[in-house]
Amino acid sequence: MKCRRCREPAVIDIRRHNAAFCQECFQHHCREQVRRTISDFDMIQPGERVLVAVSGGKDSLGLWHLLRALDYDVDGLYVGLGIGEYSDTSGAYARDFAQMHGLKLIEVDVPAEYGFDVPDGSRAAKRAPCSACGLSKRHIFNESAMTHGYDVLATGHNLDDEAAVLFGNVLRWDTAYLGRQHPVLPEAPGFARKVKPLVRLGERELAAYCVLTGIDYIVEECPMAVGNKHIGYKEVLNALEERSPGSKASFVHGFWDHAYERFAGDVAQERAELGACRACGAPTPGDLCAFCRLRARATGTPLPMLQDDGA
Amino acid sequence: MKCRRCREPAVIDIRRHNAAFCQECFQHHCREQVRRTISDFDMIQPGERVLVAVSGGKDSLGLWHLLRALDYDVDGLYVGLGIGEYSDTSGAYARDFAQMHGLKLIEVDVPAEYGFDVPDGSRAAKRAPCSACGLSKRHIFNESAMTHGYDVLATGHNLDDEAAVLFGNVLRWDTAYLGRQHPVLPEAPGFARKVKPLVRLGERELAAYCVLTGIDYIVEECPMAVGNKHIGYKEVLNALEERSPGSKASFVHGFWDHAYERFAGDVAQERAELGACRACGAPTPGDLCAFCRLRARATGTPLPMLQDDGA
Repeated sequence: MKCRRCREPAVIDIRRHNAAFCQECFQHHCREQVRRTISDFDMIQPGERVLVAVSGGKDSLGLWHLLRALDYDVDGLYVGLGIGEYSDTSGAYARDFAQMHGLKLIEVDVPAEYGFDVPDGSRAAKRAPCSACGLSKRHIFNESAMTHGYDVLATGHNLDDEAAVLFGNVLRWDTAYLGRQHPVLPEAPGFARKVKPLVRLGERELAAYCVLTGIDYIVEECPMAVGNKHIGYKEVLNALEERSPGSKASFVHGFWDHAYERFAGDVAQERAELGACRACGAPTPGDLCAFCRLRARATGTPLPMLQDDGA
Repeated sequence: MKCRRCREPAVIDIRRHNAAFCQECFQHHCREQVRRTISDFDMIQPGERVLVAVSGGKDSLGLWHLLRALDYDVDGLYVGLGIGEYSDTSGAYARDFAQMHGLKLIEVDVPAEYGFDVPDGSRAAKRAPCSACGLSKRHIFNESAMTHGYDVLATGHNLDDEAAVLFGNVLRWDTAYLGRQHPVLPEAPGFARKVKPLVRLGERELAAYCVLTGIDYIVEECPMAVGNKHIGYKEVLNALEERSPGSKASFVHGFWDHAYERFAGDVAQERAELGACRACGAPTPGDLCAFCRLRARATGTPLPMLQDDGA
């Protein structure tokens, strides 16, 4: 098996591209996939400051490395969710990576700053752990990007993640989620721009990128996510991909090319109608945003309200 | 296990309805599902003449029986596709059913009337057999309904069929097919109305309906369809349904409730732009319709053209 690019012996093959690469050309291939994604979707403009949300896993650390390799001005954000030893270990990987590459890492510790952890929040709000966690992360990612003045927030969602989420959204025809599932959510009042530069790279490619580049990452899945539907959907999609390589990519990118805009209108309308959360100021359709409601339930204490501006 | 309706011992349970039924109440349940589908989607108006396409299988014979049980004026249409022994056997089941119930069966024999069979057509046109077959059936069903003056053409597509086709259309985001996948395609110049009254009943329920009602049907799958993608998609969906009963129904009916109309506009536009096939007069975007092109290739002879009307 020879490298498609330089004809030297290959170390990895990618069936959906019908291609194999040597170590160096594979790293080049990954950078080109990210460069092309950023360019095709107009994700980041020259000179913009990027904040990448890092979990200590292969995707987010790989993304941080790739964005630096492409010369973007990018700092990291680590959110400690209080999931016992898993959080301790994942935080250590994020810190080690930042230190080794001389990069800036912003840290937010949820238990210390907000008075609850994800297991507490999940129980108190009677939400599945992944739901409470996802909502907390989305809130804190956005808040951190806005507070620290970043133009763009980047997350490490890869092709497999997007395919599994899209599959779940389509099985239920959840049109609100479908209208929000895009590699770029543009900035809006109260919202930083969100981008997913890894949507052309699969899970296996990210793992290979980290291994071949010498990036140390936490291999374990989050203990709270074991057996969730998202993971079951990945198995189904892997079986289809095995039978017909390229299925996942055509499912995800076909959605963006041919169907996404048919669902996006509802969401634009919804965003335009948001007010500000009375406790934290984040955009929300109600009185309190979902994160502040979760926090109030999990801590069992009322939240201090923002000053009424008399408007 | 007791019947939900009459509390007598049940003979079948349906997990997605969390219900079990005795023989009589199950037949009543099937009729009610069909009655409700016809009513919800405005499929058939009082007094209309219905033609049901029958293959000799459980779905189409079950549908014919159910429509008669609901007092519709419905004749059968059997299309012989020339798939060797399979066609001989399936035709015999359709004829036996019609004779036993004193119903009228219209027959069209493709080799005799059009000079080719599905295996020939598939090879000549370099199309997958299921593709050549589907296109031939759609053409002949529509032509027969128009020629014999029926108001509605009914087909036996069940919930599992619709789910598998929808799954394939969504994996590829084939927006033209998505815009046509509906339980009712309204009549239009050159097109009979097409309806699918079984979309609330699964494959297993149709098989049970036939067995419990004493309807003899061909059990074998078509030998040309073995291993096609459609069947692979059914396996995937069955695994999801097993894990989470009701997934298929919410996937299919959720599409019609929340997403279908977002794709339908393209198709209405496309239909409005069709002309007439020069050989057979059927609506087509080109000069010759797809069926006449298939026929010309399969027979290797030019088709007689319709009189030019000088327009």
